[in-house]
Amino acid sequence: MLYLVLAESALELVPKKIASHPSVVKYAKRRGKRPTEVLLDRSFHHKAMLKLKDGWKRGRPDLVHFSLLEATSIPLYFEGMLKVYVHTYTGEVIEVGEGVRLPKSYHRFVGLMEQLLKRGSVGGEEPLLRIVCRGFENLLNLIEPSKAVGLSRRGEPMKLGELAETLSMEERPLLVIGGFPRGEFRDEISSRLDGLYSVSKYALESHVVVARALYEYERVKLNNEGRGNSEWRPSSSLD
Amino acid sequence: MLYLVLAESALELVPKKIASHPSVVKYAKRRGKRPTEVLLDRSFHHKAMLKLKDGWKRGRPDLVHFSLLEATSIPLYFEGMLKVYVHTYTGEVIEVGEGVRLPKSYHRFVGLMEQLLKRGSVGGEEPLLRIVCRGFENLLNLIEPSKAVGLSRRGEPMKLGELAETLSMEERPLLVIGGFPRGEFRDEISSRLDGLYSVSKYALESHVVVARALYEYERVKLNNEGRGNSEWRPSSSLD
Repeated sequence: MLYLVLAESALELVPKKIASHPSVVKYAKRRGKRPTEVLLDRSFHHKAMLKLKDGWKRGRPDLVHFSLLEATSIPLYFEGMLKVYVHTYTGEVIEVGEGVRLPKSYHRFVGLMEQLLKRGSVGGEEPLLRIVCRGFENLLNLIEPSKAVGLSRRGEPMKLGELAETLSMEERPLLVIGGFPRGEFRDEISSRLDGLYSVSKYALESHVVVARALYEYERVKLNNEGRGNSEWRPSSSLD
Repeated sequence: MLYLVLAESALELVPKKIASHPSVVKYAKRRGKRPTEVLLDRSFHHKAMLKLKDGWKRGRPDLVHFSLLEATSIPLYFEGMLKVYVHTYTGEVIEVGEGVRLPKSYHRFVGLMEQLLKRGSVGGEEPLLRIVCRGFENLLNLIEPSKAVGLSRRGEPMKLGELAETLSMEERPLLVIGGFPRGEFRDEISSRLDGLYSVSKYALESHVVVARALYEYERVKLNNEGRGNSEWRPSSSLD
């Protein structure tokens, strides 16, 4: 099982500090919710966010949406070989259940996340999504990874294919990718990693890195889309 | 240059036939637009769409958004080695300019597409997006591909890496991927392709196929993320 954590993700409810800002009040009213019950979203709350600490790193649920869709729309996830967590800027840790089909509609995704962050879970007895703990350290205690690596432009250059090979030999590999628009992991996170790697000389969006890293890992593990053998035969059993 | 066409994409303005349906009228009013000036969107117009021919294949601008973001957020596109077109269900052909940064906010993407489909272009003298012609055949005449291949579950099994190698040897390769939620290409399209390939035994979303196919092609062409050589050196010149 590969563990994927989107770390410090730009997903949170509007913090109290800016809940009375006109742009937030107006937006919440239109949505029929209280200001502290709606997702912080730079598209709508840009002005209010200027007052916020680390504002440039926060309020981008759209980016989290893309990365989650990339992770949960692939064979690796369909086959139960990938477990996904979202660690947010404020420290909440969201566990994505098995076989969850997240809404592709942004509108619906936002509603779902608002419900989740308010209630702690969504989806009934077998929650599709739930908050399982707080803080990156507690998440590590939960996963107990055999090796934890993070991807960042500041890391040591490493090819994705090689990284995938390395992770595939681990029993409980953990891959940590930033769920924020730019910048670096906090020390709280980078200090807990066994390695920090840069997989491209370009500044790539999180969703692109998620898609590529998981694809490489999937190729090693499912071994059905590698190169050099033009005839793969569909099979229902995959080890 | 690789040409990518998202074919029969589920992106169009609300057709006249359902413009007077209550769900459409209400939605358009809230957006301050006429019913025929808003994008057809299953999330909001599901009931109205039940009356529509091929309704299951239409009204999914969210899918087109994801696929376009995958295509325009990667080194291959940054380096000017990828040209992207959206061919819509109704036959409009949209050309994506060079170096365009499409909005990640769905809200803004929708506004942009509405403007484009109404006016024919957006972005001033050097349009970011513009409608260049109508119909798949005219698009082929415009691109003049040396080889045109489509991806579909009904195609002949082929590994993505191998497909990328084949395309990379062409002067003007064209890759056609469906921009719709499910189903097959129309005959109008499949009959004009030099090959139809299935690159996975799984039913993958368009955005996943776009991300993976372009990644494989990029690896062959940019040759900076292949495997077997752990030291890639950042370089500003890429042939």
